[in-house]
Amino acid sequence: MTDTIISSAGREVAIGFDRPFVVIGERINPTGRKLLAEEMKQGDYSRVEADALAQVAAGAQVLDVNAGIPLADEPAILAECIRLIQSITDVPLCIDSSMIAALQAGLEAYQGKALLNSVTGEEERLEAVLPLVKKHGCAVVAISNDDTGISEDPDVRFEVARKIVERAGDYGIPASDVVVDPLVMPIGAVGTAGKQVMHLVRRLREELKVNTTCGASNLSFGLPNREGLNAAFIPMAMAAGMTSAITNPLKPDLIQAVRGADIVLGHDPECMNWIRVYRESEPGGGQRRRRSRRRQGP
Amino acid sequence: MTDTIISSAGREVAIGFDRPFVVIGERINPTGRKLLAEEMKQGDYSRVEADALAQVAAGAQVLDVNAGIPLADEPAILAECIRLIQSITDVPLCIDSSMIAALQAGLEAYQGKALLNSVTGEEERLEAVLPLVKKHGCAVVAISNDDTGISEDPDVRFEVARKIVERAGDYGIPASDVVVDPLVMPIGAVGTAGKQVMHLVRRLREELKVNTTCGASNLSFGLPNREGLNAAFIPMAMAAGMTSAITNPLKPDLIQAVRGADIVLGHDPECMNWIRVYRESEPGGGQRRRRSRRRQGP
Repeated sequence: MTDTIISSAGREVAIGFDRPFVVIGERINPTGRKLLAEEMKQGDYSRVEADALAQVAAGAQVLDVNAGIPLADEPAILAECIRLIQSITDVPLCIDSSMIAALQAGLEAYQGKALLNSVTGEEERLEAVLPLVKKHGCAVVAISNDDTGISEDPDVRFEVARKIVERAGDYGIPASDVVVDPLVMPIGAVGTAGKQVMHLVRRLREELKVNTTCGASNLSFGLPNREGLNAAFIPMAMAAGMTSAITNPLKPDLIQAVRGADIVLGHDPECMNWIRVYRESEPGGGQRRRRSRRRQGP
Repeated sequence: MTDTIISSAGREVAIGFDRPFVVIGERINPTGRKLLAEEMKQGDYSRVEADALAQVAAGAQVLDVNAGIPLADEPAILAECIRLIQSITDVPLCIDSSMIAALQAGLEAYQGKALLNSVTGEEERLEAVLPLVKKHGCAVVAISNDDTGISEDPDVRFEVARKIVERAGDYGIPASDVVVDPLVMPIGAVGTAGKQVMHLVRRLREELKVNTTCGASNLSFGLPNREGLNAAFIPMAMAAGMTSAITNPLKPDLIQAVRGADIVLGHDPECMNWIRVYRESEPGGGQRRRRSRRRQGP
């Protein structure tokens, strides 16, 4: 019954086995978003603000913040984004960078207990990130690859996760502060990717007793109708025990799938959340909301 | 690795653990469809024909046929519908009635190996239906209630299913010809309904080694946005091992959820079926198809 508690100055969110699924909004990330990258580099954070508010309104309980822009001062931009986002919303943040200095700057700017994204099983990364996690008392996303790369064998990825959890323990970081990403492969290339995730999530939960997260949309990479496939996959991962995902809450089918799966798992008592959100929708699935949102335009 | 084989004169369908999920179209059923009931009673089967063709076009691999109309000659109407449907499509049929005489008339009219819907754990029903199943060599849906009613305890429902499978065995009917319906409760009333189904389906598969089916839309009874909830539930039931459902293939989100879950489970090799269906859809989930279908009108 592991709970991972993260917080802002004013709000706590628990990722946990018996909790509603936690959607970590992925939009604040310049990777593949040229315009956003350019604006962030120029110090224009209007789109970051808008993306933060829109994702929270759509149902994200946590926001991922990434400022990985080539040839820019990533630590400064990440810290600035974090201060800005914390000034306009109280959802906890997931501080996301591949650069240690940026993680450090982000943690220093952050108010509350953040989720740090990420540590891997690579020796150098373990030794750089775990002391930061310990020092700031935050939680951390653990990605199950190591110095040998990403194994296609899910049981090897499980052993990498076990190693990270054990090493975190050596630093005095409890397993409840480690959220494991089992790594979702594109199923168009790796046909067993879906079964791998369900198998791994079950083992991570039963044997390591850790919470889990994933980049859910990786599964559908390269396929048509990605949102439709992602919306089928997330409830299955949730049924296997996945407790959070870094994904796009602005996709209505996806967030609907999460809310529906929460009901099925008994995590939306009396279906109160579902009824609140969908009571005005037409028979046949919330299409009126989607259409009217479209009409309102950008 | 149980396969339940059903067939028409020209086509075989296998419901099985390692097979694509089988959607049994539920539309040909006058219950709650006043106009259809009236037409069927008058011998006008134009809507039955249209419903049959539309469901097959939408992706149903089997069609349920029910002719339960008060004060009508149900056996004759059911037999007539079966002959008619078999003359216009080659998908196997599920012969559905609470009346033994109608099941018998349906079986006599049917060409191939039907799925008979249904037997329960009630003594009288067991003794009336199982000899019919044996005589015609068909498969049968087994509903897990008995003379004491429907238990809210899923493990009691499991024991009812076990009894039916054993009694079928006494008649020489193999377990592979019994498809168990674990009974899906409305989750608005029974909050554990979703977890019950997943628990039961897993036990039915691992311990009794039988295929399973359900009236999937029962889950969302009384709630708004039923299609959205059903579309989240079906992939979860499939992840637990459910191998077929009696449901409405004309709901695009629902059939999309089934196709997506088939990919995740590795039952759509190379994603060929998904790509065939959705390759022309816009990014964001097949909405163009839905809109254009609406414009074409009835």
